Amino acid sequence: MARNIAGIDLGGTKIFGARVRRDGDGATVTDETKRPTPTTSVDDIVSAIAEVVAELGPTPDAVGIGTPGVIAPGSGVVEYAPNLAGFDQPVRLAERVAEAVGVPVVIGNDVNMAALGEARMGAGRGSADVLAVWMGTGLGAGLIVDGRLRVGPNGLAGELGHVVVVPGGRPCACGGRGHLEAYIGRRSLEARARELHASGRVTDLVDRAGDDPMKSKVFSKAYEGGDDVAVELIDEGLEMLAHAVANVLVVVDVTTVVIGGGLGERLGPVVVDRLGRRLASLHYAGAAPTIVEASLGDHAGALGAAFHADEQPVRA
Amino acid sequence: MARNIAGIDLGGTKIFGARVRRDGDGATVTDETKRPTPTTSVDDIVSAIAEVVAELGPTPDAVGIGTPGVIAPGSGVVEYAPNLAGFDQPVRLAERVAEAVGVPVVIGNDVNMAALGEARMGAGRGSADVLAVWMGTGLGAGLIVDGRLRVGPNGLAGELGHVVVVPGGRPCACGGRGHLEAYIGRRSLEARARELHASGRVTDLVDRAGDDPMKSKVFSKAYEGGDDVAVELIDEGLEMLAHAVANVLVVVDVTTVVIGGGLGERLGPVVVDRLGRRLASLHYAGAAPTIVEASLGDHAGALGAAFHADEQPVRA
Repeated sequence: MARNIAGIDLGGTKIFGARVRRDGDGATVTDETKRPTPTTSVDDIVSAIAEVVAELGPTPDAVGIGTPGVIAPGSGVVEYAPNLAGFDQPVRLAERVAEAVGVPVVIGNDVNMAALGEARMGAGRGSADVLAVWMGTGLGAGLIVDGRLRVGPNGLAGELGHVVVVPGGRPCACGGRGHLEAYIGRRSLEARARELHASGRVTDLVDRAGDDPMKSKVFSKAYEGGDDVAVELIDEGLEMLAHAVANVLVVVDVTTVVIGGGLGERLGPVVVDRLGRRLASLHYAGAAPTIVEASLGDHAGALGAAFHADEQPVRA
Repeated sequence: MARNIAGIDLGGTKIFGARVRRDGDGATVTDETKRPTPTTSVDDIVSAIAEVVAELGPTPDAVGIGTPGVIAPGSGVVEYAPNLAGFDQPVRLAERVAEAVGVPVVIGNDVNMAALGEARMGAGRGSADVLAVWMGTGLGAGLIVDGRLRVGPNGLAGELGHVVVVPGGRPCACGGRGHLEAYIGRRSLEARARELHASGRVTDLVDRAGDDPMKSKVFSKAYEGGDDVAVELIDEGLEMLAHAVANVLVVVDVTTVVIGGGLGERLGPVVVDRLGRRLASLHYAGAAPTIVEASLGDHAGALGAAFHADEQPVRA
C-alpha cells in the first residue's frame, strides 16, 4: 500500500518540506515547500512545521524531521540545538509536532537525514553501503550500512568530525585534540587562516572575507585562485579526510562515498579528485570506493527525513 | 522449530567443532570435538571436517565454518590461506564440504566468527553493538552492528589492523604504512624487539625466546616483569589501539569492546585497564564502552560459525 510521508529539514534559517509517496521500493517526490525558521520560540517553530506539513497536501501517514543538535536515540527529544530559538534546553520535538499534525513523527540528526536522502534518491542511490561526508561549518557524516541508516546505541554513528587524525594535534571545538574537524571544517579553516594572517601571511581569504565569517565561496575562490594559505590549509585538511575515510573503508566497508554540505558542494570536484587519488594509495585493499558529489542540494535532508520516518519504528 | 548447527573452526593446527542447538532466541552447546588439521591436501581437510561434523551427532541442519584467509563475501570460496595445505589457490570450501556432509554450508573469516561467538554466547552476550579486537600474530577485529555480524560488501569490515594510526608511520606486513598492526601484532612487536636488541638494547624478550618465535607468553612475562623494551613497545601499541578504538566508537558506535586472541588473552587485564583509562579521555562523547576479556577461549570461533550459518542465507 502506498504511504505518503512528509519530510522536514529544520534548519537554523529555513524549514524545508518535501512530500514523498512510497510504493513498494519506489518513491516519488510529489510536493515541496519552504519558509523561514521562526526566531522566536519553540511553539512558533512547531507551528511553522505543522503549517509546512499542511501545505504539502492531505494529512500524511507520518512525518520525519531532520534537526540540528544532539538527539538521544529513540527519544524524539532534541537535547540541545543552540541555533534554534528555545532549543537551548531539551525539546520533545517529535511529541510536540505529533500533537500538532495528528500523525506519528520521527526525528533524526540533520546530517544523518541528508545522508539517507542521498543514499535513497541522490548520489548514493543503488548502493547499500554509503558514507556521506558533510563538509560545512564543521564536518559530519552519515553511514548507511546494509541498506539501513546507522544511528548507533548512543546516536554517535557517523561522527567522523571527531575521529582522531593526529594524536595530540590541533584543538577541536569539542575540547578534544587532533580531531578531523579541527583540520577541515569551515570554522577551523577560518580560525587557522586568521592565525596565519595575524602572523604576517598574506591571503586572499582574509582579503575577501574581511571581518565577516568566511563563507564556502570564499574558500573555493581562494583555492581556485591558487592562494597559498587556502591551498595549504585545504590540502592538509583533505589529506586528513583521506586518512579518516580510508579507515572507515577497512572498519565499516562501504562502496560509495558522497561528498556534500556547503563547503563540500563548493569544493566538490577538488574533494572528489583528491580523495580518489589518495584512497587509491592509502586504502589497504586497493579497491577504492566510488566517490561522488551529493546531487540533491538543499533537498537531501527533507527527503532523507521522509525515508527515515517510513523506515523506522514510529513514535508518536 | 529447533535447529541443530555444526560450527567448525578450521585452524592451521587443529579443527575444532561444536554442535549448537538453537531454539527461538536460546542456544545450547550439545557437543564439542577436535582433531589435528591435515597438512596434506584440500581433500584431506574436507574429509576431516566431514568427520568432525559426523562425530558431533546426527546430520545437522547446516554447517558453519570459520577459516583463515580471504573470502569473497557470499562466494563460499577461500581465496588464499597460506597456512592451510592446498589453500594457496582458491578453494570452494563451502561447496566441497556441502557435498561431503549433504547439508548447506556457510563459511566466514575466523576472526569474524570468533567475534560473533563472543557476541552471542561469550563476553559480549546481550549487547547488540560489539567490537571484538583479536590480538594475535597480527591484529584483527569483528564488528556486530545492530545485532548482526558486519561482513561488508568487500568482506573488509572489521579490518582494524589496517587502519592508519600514524600517517607515513612504520611499514605494515601488508605493504601499507602506519597501520595499527605495525604497532601491536605479535609479529610486529617481535620484529621491533629484535631490531632494538640488535641495536644494543637488553631485553628479556630475546633472552626468553632465543631464536624461536616470541610467543604471547613471552610478551606477557616480560611485560609483567617490567622489561623496558616490552613495556615500551606494548604501551606504545596499546596507545595506538586506544586511538583506533576511540575512532570506531565515533564512527560505528558500539557499547561493548571484547579483547581476545592469543596475545589478547595473555595481556587481557592490562589491555582492558589501559584501554578503559585511555578511552575515558580520548573518546569524544566521554561515555566509554564496556571493555571485557573474551570468555570462550578456543571455542569462540566454532560457536560463532554455528550462529553465522544459522543467521545467514545458506549456500549449498
